Amino acid sequence: MKEFYMNLALSEAWKYQFLTYPNPAVACVILDRNGKILAIKAHEKAGCAHAELNAISHAFKSLKPEIPLPKEANALHEFICKNHQGIFKDSIAFVTLEPCTHQGKTPPCAKLFSELGFKTIFISVKDENKLASGGAEFLKKQGIEVELGILEEKGKQLLKPFLIWQKKQFKLFKLALSMNGSPFGKIVSNELSRTYAHKIRSVIDLLVVGGDTIRKDRPILDARLCKGKAPDICILTRKQLDDFDKNIPLFKVPKRQIYTQVPHEAKFLMYEGGENFLKIFKNEIDMFLIFQNPNLNNEKNVTIPLNFKVLYRGFLGNNIYGIYEL
Amino acid sequence: MKEFYMNLALSEAWKYQFLTYPNPAVACVILDRNGKILAIKAHEKAGCAHAELNAISHAFKSLKPEIPLPKEANALHEFICKNHQGIFKDSIAFVTLEPCTHQGKTPPCAKLFSELGFKTIFISVKDENKLASGGAEFLKKQGIEVELGILEEKGKQLLKPFLIWQKKQFKLFKLALSMNGSPFGKIVSNELSRTYAHKIRSVIDLLVVGGDTIRKDRPILDARLCKGKAPDICILTRKQLDDFDKNIPLFKVPKRQIYTQVPHEAKFLMYEGGENFLKIFKNEIDMFLIFQNPNLNNEKNVTIPLNFKVLYRGFLGNNIYGIYEL
Repeated sequence: MKEFYMNLALSEAWKYQFLTYPNPAVACVILDRNGKILAIKAHEKAGCAHAELNAISHAFKSLKPEIPLPKEANALHEFICKNHQGIFKDSIAFVTLEPCTHQGKTPPCAKLFSELGFKTIFISVKDENKLASGGAEFLKKQGIEVELGILEEKGKQLLKPFLIWQKKQFKLFKLALSMNGSPFGKIVSNELSRTYAHKIRSVIDLLVVGGDTIRKDRPILDARLCKGKAPDICILTRKQLDDFDKNIPLFKVPKRQIYTQVPHEAKFLMYEGGENFLKIFKNEIDMFLIFQNPNLNNEKNVTIPLNFKVLYRGFLGNNIYGIYEL
Repeated sequence: MKEFYMNLALSEAWKYQFLTYPNPAVACVILDRNGKILAIKAHEKAGCAHAELNAISHAFKSLKPEIPLPKEANALHEFICKNHQGIFKDSIAFVTLEPCTHQGKTPPCAKLFSELGFKTIFISVKDENKLASGGAEFLKKQGIEVELGILEEKGKQLLKPFLIWQKKQFKLFKLALSMNGSPFGKIVSNELSRTYAHKIRSVIDLLVVGGDTIRKDRPILDARLCKGKAPDICILTRKQLDDFDKNIPLFKVPKRQIYTQVPHEAKFLMYEGGENFLKIFKNEIDMFLIFQNPNLNNEKNVTIPLNFKVLYRGFLGNNIYGIYEL
C-alpha cells in the first residue's frame, strides 16, 4: 500500500505543476496511527505553506474543527507546534520530496514532523538542493523511521521542471487540440483548461507568441480567468513592434513589458501558438502542455511528426491534458 | 471523505467495464473500523466473485495472510463466514451498486456484510433489478447503517452499458487514433490498449466489421492477447461471403461463426473499423471506445463532426482511452 499512498501524493502534486514556480511541485499524504487518511495536500504556490504544513493543517482542521487556525504559514507552523495535543503521535506521512530542513520563507518541515511525534515518513525523491536537503538524516536522528525511494522514478518526473528552471531557462509549449488533432476553432479547450493555462500565465516570467497570432487573433493574453497578474510578453516577429496596431488588447494591459527578444533573466517561458509556431520551436522546448477536447470536427489536423514521452496526464472536466517531453 | 472512497470504487469498477458482461461493472472499497483502507476490488468477470466478496477476501488475505482461501466463489463465501473471527466487526464498505440479496451463481452479498458485522455500507446506486434488489432494506433490518446515493450520477454512468444490454442490443464502436486524430498506421494503440480490446472481444456476442477492412488488412480478429475465446464475426458487405479469400486468417479460427447479418440474439456487439465504418454506423451506436496514443504523425485525421459526452476516461500505459456517448 506504500505505493498507493505515494501515488495519491504524486497525483495531487501534479495538479499544481508549474503553479509553484520557482518552487518544486510537492505533495504530502498524512495517515493517522491507525492508517486512516487524514489529508492529501500539495504545495500550491510559492510563499504559501509547503505541502507538509498544508497537509498537517488540513488534518488538524478535520480532527479539531473547533480550533481556528492562523492563515499565514509561519504563524500556522508555530500554532500547530504549540497546540497539537499529541493528535499526530505515531502518524505516517508520504512526501513526494524529502522534507526541507531550512528556514526559508516558511519554517523547516522536517522539524514539524518531529515536533508532532510522527512515526514514519515515506519519501519518493531525495532533495539534492544543498540548502534544503538533509531532512531524512535529521528525521532519523530524531528517531523517526524514514524510507526513501518510494515510486522514485515518478517522483523524479514530477520534479523535472524544477530541476530545469533552477539551472537554465525552462520552456513550456502550450497547445490546444480537438480529439482529431485540429487546433482550429474559436475556443478549443474548456474553461477549466483555460483557467489552468491562465494560472500558469500568472506565474511565468514571459509569454512568448508569434506576430501572426497577434495580428490575426488580436488577443489580450492576460490571466483574467484566475484573476492573476498578466504576463510580460515577447512577440517574435520579423516586423517592427511599431508596425502592430496598438489597439490590439494585449498592448493595453497596464504595467506589461513587451519584448521582441527573450531577455536572458527570464527563467520560465511559456510559448503559445499553433502549428507553425510549434514547427519552428519544437526542438528548443523542454516540455509540451497539450489540452484536448472530446470532439471530432471537420478541420485539418496538426501534422508535425512528434513522438511524445508522457510525463503526466490528467483531466480538467471533459478535457484531457498531458505534459510531455520529446 | 465519503466521495473520495466512492470515487476509488468507481475508478476500480471502470477498469472492468464491458468485461463483466452480462453482469454490471461493480466495485467495492473496504475500510476497517478505524478507517484504514483494506481493499479496493471490482467484480472482474461473470461467474467470478462479486465485487463485495472479492474485496472482502482481499482484505481477509491482508489481515490473515497465514490462512489459505478457497478460490471458487461459493466456497470462498462460506469459508469467510465460518472463519472471520470478528476481524470485520464495525468495518465500512463503499459499493457502487446496491449489494444483491439473491442466490445467483454466487451467494448474496448483503448477507455477507451482515454476517461479518459491518457497521456502515455506503452505496452509490440502488439496484432496480427486481431479482437482486432489496439489499439496502435487508441490511437496515440487520441493524447496519446504510447510506444510498453517494456520487449517484457517476454510479449511474458506470451502470449504463448493463442497463442497455439488459433490455436491448448494446453496440460499442472501437476506434484507435493518434494524438492528431489519424486512424492510420500499422499499430495505433499500445499493447495494454489492445489487450483490453481483446478482453472485450472475448466476452462479446459478436464482432462487427466491414468487408473492406477484411480484404485490406486480412486480420485474424481473435483474443490472443488475453488468451481468450475469439469472437463470432459479422461481416457487413455488399458482396457474398464466398467471394472472400478463405485464406484470410479470421476464417481459419476454429468454432467461429461467421454471419453477414446481425443475429437478433446477439446482445453485446462491438464494431471495429475506421472512418467510413464510423460514418455509416455512428447514429446507431450506444457507446464509443476510443484509444489515443501520444504521437503526432503526418497522416490525415478523421473528420466526422461528432461531439462526444465523456462517460469515463482512463490510461493504459502511455495511451489514453475514453468511453463516450453522443
